[in-house]
Order: sequence, then C-alpha cells, then structure tokens
Amino acid sequence: MPILVQKFGGSSVADAACIKRVAGIAVNAKKKGYQVVVVVSAMGDTTDKLINLSKEITNKPNAREYDLLVSTGEQISIPLVAMAIQSLGEKSISQTGLQVGIMTEDRHGKARITEIKTDKLKKYLKEGNIVIVAGFQGISEVTGEITTLGRGGSDTTAMALAVALGAERCDIYTDVDGVFTTNPDTVNEASKLKTISYEEMLELASLGAAVLHPRSVEIAKNYEMPMRVRSSFKPEDEGTLVQGVEKMELNNPVSGVALDESQARIAIAGVPDKPGIAATVFETLAKKNISVDMIIQSTSKDGTNEIAFTVDKENIEDAKVVSAEIAKEINATDVTVDVNIAKVSIVGAGMIGRPGIAAAMFKALADNKINIQMISTSEIKVSCVVESKDGDKAVKAIHKVFELDKVSKEKQKV
Amino acid sequence: MPILVQKFGGSSVADAACIKRVAGIAVNAKKKGYQVVVVVSAMGDTTDKLINLSKEITNKPNAREYDLLVSTGEQISIPLVAMAIQSLGEKSISQTGLQVGIMTEDRHGKARITEIKTDKLKKYLKEGNIVIVAGFQGISEVTGEITTLGRGGSDTTAMALAVALGAERCDIYTDVDGVFTTNPDTVNEASKLKTISYEEMLELASLGAAVLHPRSVEIAKNYEMPMRVRSSFKPEDEGTLVQGVEKMELNNPVSGVALDESQARIAIAGVPDKPGIAATVFETLAKKNISVDMIIQSTSKDGTNEIAFTVDKENIEDAKVVSAEIAKEINATDVTVDVNIAKVSIVGAGMIGRPGIAAAMFKALADNKINIQMISTSEIKVSCVVESKDGDKAVKAIHKVFELDKVSKEKQKV
Repeated sequence: MPILVQKFGGSSVADAACIKRVAGIAVNAKKKGYQVVVVVSAMGDTTDKLINLSKEITNKPNAREYDLLVSTGEQISIPLVAMAIQSLGEKSISQTGLQVGIMTEDRHGKARITEIKTDKLKKYLKEGNIVIVAGFQGISEVTGEITTLGRGGSDTTAMALAVALGAERCDIYTDVDGVFTTNPDTVNEASKLKTISYEEMLELASLGAAVLHPRSVEIAKNYEMPMRVRSSFKPEDEGTLVQGVEKMELNNPVSGVALDESQARIAIAGVPDKPGIAATVFETLAKKNISVDMIIQSTSKDGTNEIAFTVDKENIEDAKVVSAEIAKEINATDVTVDVNIAKVSIVGAGMIGRPGIAAAMFKALADNKINIQMISTSEIKVSCVVESKDGDKAVKAIHKVFELDKVSKEKQKV
Repeated sequence: MPILVQKFGGSSVADAACIKRVAGIAVNAKKKGYQVVVVVSAMGDTTDKLINLSKEITNKPNAREYDLLVSTGEQISIPLVAMAIQSLGEKSISQTGLQVGIMTEDRHGKARITEIKTDKLKKYLKEGNIVIVAGFQGISEVTGEITTLGRGGSDTTAMALAVALGAERCDIYTDVDGVFTTNPDTVNEASKLKTISYEEMLELASLGAAVLHPRSVEIAKNYEMPMRVRSSFKPEDEGTLVQGVEKMELNNPVSGVALDESQARIAIAGVPDKPGIAATVFETLAKKNISVDMIIQSTSKDGTNEIAFTVDKENIEDAKVVSAEIAKEINATDVTVDVNIAKVSIVGAGMIGRPGIAAAMFKALADNKINIQMISTSEIKVSCVVESKDGDKAVKAIHKVFELDKVSKEKQKV
C-alpha cells in the first residue's frame, strides 16, 4: 500500500471540532487505500502560551529545559488526534519524537534532523494503524535529550518522514487554500496555482509569501518528494501541488508575485574605488550576524562608488552602527538609511530561457510611475525595491501584466 | 550529604509566582546541606483542562493515549521549576518519569511503581543539581509506554523516590498547614497536630480527611520513611510530621475526628436466616465493581436478618439495582436506600489498650441527642453513621469531649 504523510498546522487542530475534522481527513485517506502517517503541530496558540510561561520565570531559559517545555504542545495534540480517529473506528497510535525515534543534532531550539527510525512506524502501519507523530520535536543523537527543530519544524518533520518512509506524497494542510499567484488580501484577482516547482516555492517562501517553511521545501526538492499545500477546512479542494520543474507544464513564465515589506535599505556613498572594500563591508556585517539580502554597487561620476544593500528591519539599528563605523574606516562620505522600502518580486521557473520577462516587469512599474531603487535577478526571480507606498500598486500592476488572474483553476487529478 | 525529597502539589505551582516560591524553598534546603529532589504535580487546573479536552473528543478514550495526554501536565511544570531554580544561581535539571526511569506495571491510568532507577538521579545530585522529577507518571516496565499512577500519584512518586534514594525525609508541600485534629472549616477549635502516626494518617485519608494519598502513606509506613505535611505558602512552618508510632509520645488517645459525607446506606430487610446469604450479597456487588465500606448484619425478632451496608454515593444507583435483584433472588422483603447519612470517625493510635474510648464517643453523641445508625470499629478507629444533618454537630461534640482543641501547638524540632 502506498504511504501518505499528512501534516496539520496549529490552526488545523485548534480545538476539538478541528481535531475531529483532521481525524476525518486521515480516515478518508486510509479508506482510499493509503497507509497514513499524520504529523501534528501544537493546538492553536499553545506554544505561545508555553513560551509566555517560560518568560514569566526567566528571560534566559536553559535551552534543554525550554525544549522539554515547548515540546509538550505537540504531545497534547497527538493523543487527541489518535483518540478522534479511534472514535471513527480506525486503529491509531500517537508517537512523540522520542518514541518514534526522530534523531537530531545535539543542539537545542534549532536542531536538524539527522535520521528517522522507521522500524516502529512501519510496524504500526502494517498493523493497520494511522500513526500520529508529534511535529517539531526529536531527540539528540548524542544525549537522547528532547530537542526542537525551530520555526516551521512540523513541516520539516512531515517531509523528512515522507522521505524516510518512501511516501507517495506529503500533504501540508493549513488554513489557506493553497499557493496563490500573489497575496489574495492585496489583490482580489489572485488565483490559486494548481502546481508550482520546488524552486519557485523556495523563492516565494524567502520572499515573505511563506506558506511553507523553506527547510521542508528543500528536503522535498532534494528527494523529489511531491507535496501538496491544501486547506484542512476544505479537504475536497486539492490545493497546490509542489513538484519538480520537469513534471510541470510551464504555460506561464511567471508563477507568482510577492511583496516583502520587512527589509530596509542602507546606502554608503563616496566609497573609494579600491579593491576589497565590498568584502570589508560584508564581512564585517556577517561577523555581527546581520544577514544581507540585496546588494548593489554602482560607480558615481566622481570615481567613488555607492554600496547599497538591504537588511531585515529588525537588524537595522545594528546595521546602521556597523555601517557608520565601516564608512569612517574606509573614508566613505555618507551613510543613509531608508526603512520605507518594499521589495516586489516575480518568481517563475518558466522565465528560464524566455527573454523579456524582467523588461515586462520594469515596464509595468514605469507605466504606473513607480520608481525602481534597486534590482536583483536570479534564474527564476526578479526583485525590485520600490518606495513602500508603491508596494501594493506595484504588485497589482505586475500581476495584471503577466495575466496571473487567468491562471487555470481547473482541478488536477491526484 | 543527606537527601531530602520535596513534593509540591498543583496549587503550590499554580503560576509563575508560586513556581518561584517553590524554587526558593528548594534552594534553601540545598543551602542547609541537603541533596534535593523536587517532585512536582501539574500546574493548578492543567490536568482538569487536559481531561476536558479529551472528553470533548471522546467519552471512551484509549488508555495509552489518555496517559500520554495527561502526563504533559507535569512535563510543563518541571522545566519551569528547573528554570526558576537556575535563575537563583543553583544548578538544576528536570526529568520526566520516562527520562529518570520510574518503572511501573504495564497498566494505564492507575499503574503501580515497580522500580525506580537511581543511577541518573544520583549522578545529577552528585554534580550539584537540584533534580526536578515529574510526579504521577512512569513507564511500563514491559512496553516502555508512558503510564500514570492514578489519583494522588505525585505523592506516591515522591515517597517512592525518597525510599529508593534512602532520603532522610520526604516533605509534602500543599496548600494547608498540616494535619489537623478535624476539619478547621467546620470546627474553629481544630488544632494542627505536631505528629501523627502512619496508621492514623492512613485511617484519616480513607475517612475523607485526605491531605495525603493513602498509597504514599503506605509506602512511608512500609519503609519507615518520615514525612512532613506542610504549606508551600508558609515554608517556615514545619507542619505535621508523619512517622512510626514507636517514636511518638501518645499523650492523647485520639488524634483526630473525621467526617465523611460521601457514603449512602442500603438496607435489605427480611433476609432469610440461611448460611451464605451475606456472601451472595457482597460477591454480587464486588462483581459489579461496587466497593462496600461498612457492613452490619442484625437479627430481627421474626428470625429474619437485616443486612445494611454503605457505598459511595456515586455508585448508589448501580448498588440499588443490584440490591433489588439480590433481594428478589433471596426472598428478602425490602430494600431501603438512605443518602442522607454522614460517617463520623475518631482515629488514634493512642486508643490501643485504653478501654472506654468508643464509649466516650457514643456518650458524646447521646448527650447531643444524635442517633447512631451504624457502628464499626478497628484497633485505632471508631466510626458511627448518623443522619447527615447531625454530621457537623457530632464532629464538634466529639472534638470537645476528647479535648482536641488542647493539642499542643508547640514547635517540634526537625
């Protein structure tokens, strides 16, 4: 029998009614002939409540104790899902990360999975159980202590399990209907994508259109595990299938438009045109643990350079201080900071080998009198920094020019 | 260094402030030269909330899943206590039942501890840690699955740990100041006992004056482990020391008066006077899992017998049905049920070998015009069933006649 892994996020198991709905979805898959493994997050805001409890005790919790605490969130939801499935007359057993044997690095709060033991899992599946596995948690392969996987950890658990078990597919159930061409809250015409490639999904995740955690998409991509993003509230809707490019019909050069308002821009002007200056700047920032996203270096008429880059707004104060120090050191003239920026990006595996996509994007912005401050491109992505007030307008204009409202909404067979 | 086990109930760790108080108590003991093991229950009403969640899913939860669910309560409180202790600058590590190795029977919901692994515990203590152990939970020695110990389980965990580690004493911290001569809410003159024997404590627990779970007292008695019942809100108060009779000065024949309003009385009248009838009655009740407390058989003038017994009010409907069936079968004439009863009991190791104690109790009731319906006695206990409206009056009268308000309140040295 083929194996199907289903993952349900916190909003999908927020209360008893939700948990019963999840049980129904799992039982349906079983009845369709799958061996089913269900990965569950903590119920609703349980994890936040646990974190708040910890904060009431101390600002600097011991990492081991913290992991033991927050891992209870999933340990609450898994037996409840198992009970709900049993109430529907199917066999079910729940497993914590420790019980099932999800081995991780010996690191708390952000461990990576190193191995998944499948003996017990396969035995339970063979016995006819729907197996419920706690997401987000594992045990250190060195100490046997409970570890957690960091943000988006349950997606990662699900994908790693799917790979370890050789599943047919991994379905990620969430509270949205799938992956859209852009944010439906901003653009009414946004349409749901039937399919998207791993690469595009990775770019969209990093661009702030996060439905999936990048780590889970990376695993899926590396092992070519098909995954589906779908809603637990509309289980009849097949959502969006994420798979390898080679399997997709690339009718459209662009799959989606993303808006990222989390970045700020720093520009260092009057930088002497000497080799190694850029390296100095970005090495210093990296040492201070400040991640830089876009980087532009341009030459001014007076022979000096301008180095501009974007960082997360939450790092802006640190980045400013570091930049000012560097500017002094290298005899640059000026540091300016702009937090009122937005990054608009198009993503599409279909743009590979099709010239003119970037140009069409720039023209759409120009036609709408939107000034472009920075540009960066990759094989399947073009990003432009614009003034933050123009962000929504830019997304709408681009969405229209690539006719993303006409993306087919036809059902695709599973 | 001597080992001290401290157990804190749910009300003692109900919130962050309580947990910090608990941390202070543990650190104080460490500073006094003890190696300290702390056993903790779930915070406040956490366990009830978990049970309610389970009820929202199903009325018949699978026992294994149920144990996995409810065991999270303690897994939340233990890391929080460890963090709070660490914040005070002491080393601390928390341990679930599984992690520390509290082995139990292979039985869910009500498992008995079979063995406690002490290697890890001793290692952590030697390294200078205050070790925080989750109460109420263990793992099946057969399957390795998480089990729970049933009601009062955390007291049992603490006592079993104290015995396994050869502790000097086990302190049970709760929200009352110690063990009283009777319920202070009913009788203003109730005084706190400095000491009480295991045997008396056992009788008081079963008589509804429960501060300690009988199983923990049984363990303490069997291994002669001194225990102290004290308040986490008044840590300077030494509470009540529970210990063997031989160590006590038995100044008073009676230690306490207990009132139990949880029983109902069933009487089967007109029972033919034939051998084996009583056996039939109580075997049938036992088969239906109905526990019987007091039993009285008396002979009437017409040569038939009356069999009267008490059962828990929550079993009264079942007991009524069973009794009616039995009555029919044995040709008894009548079954009457009375839920308006109260059981008043005196307990005292000091009554052994002192005649007249029971008589003094009956006289106190008679002087107050309280009618006695049933009597049962053991070596250290006399119980009378009275009308429920007379319960409080009976307790007050008996408390006075044995001068329990004059029990010394002097501090006793630890």
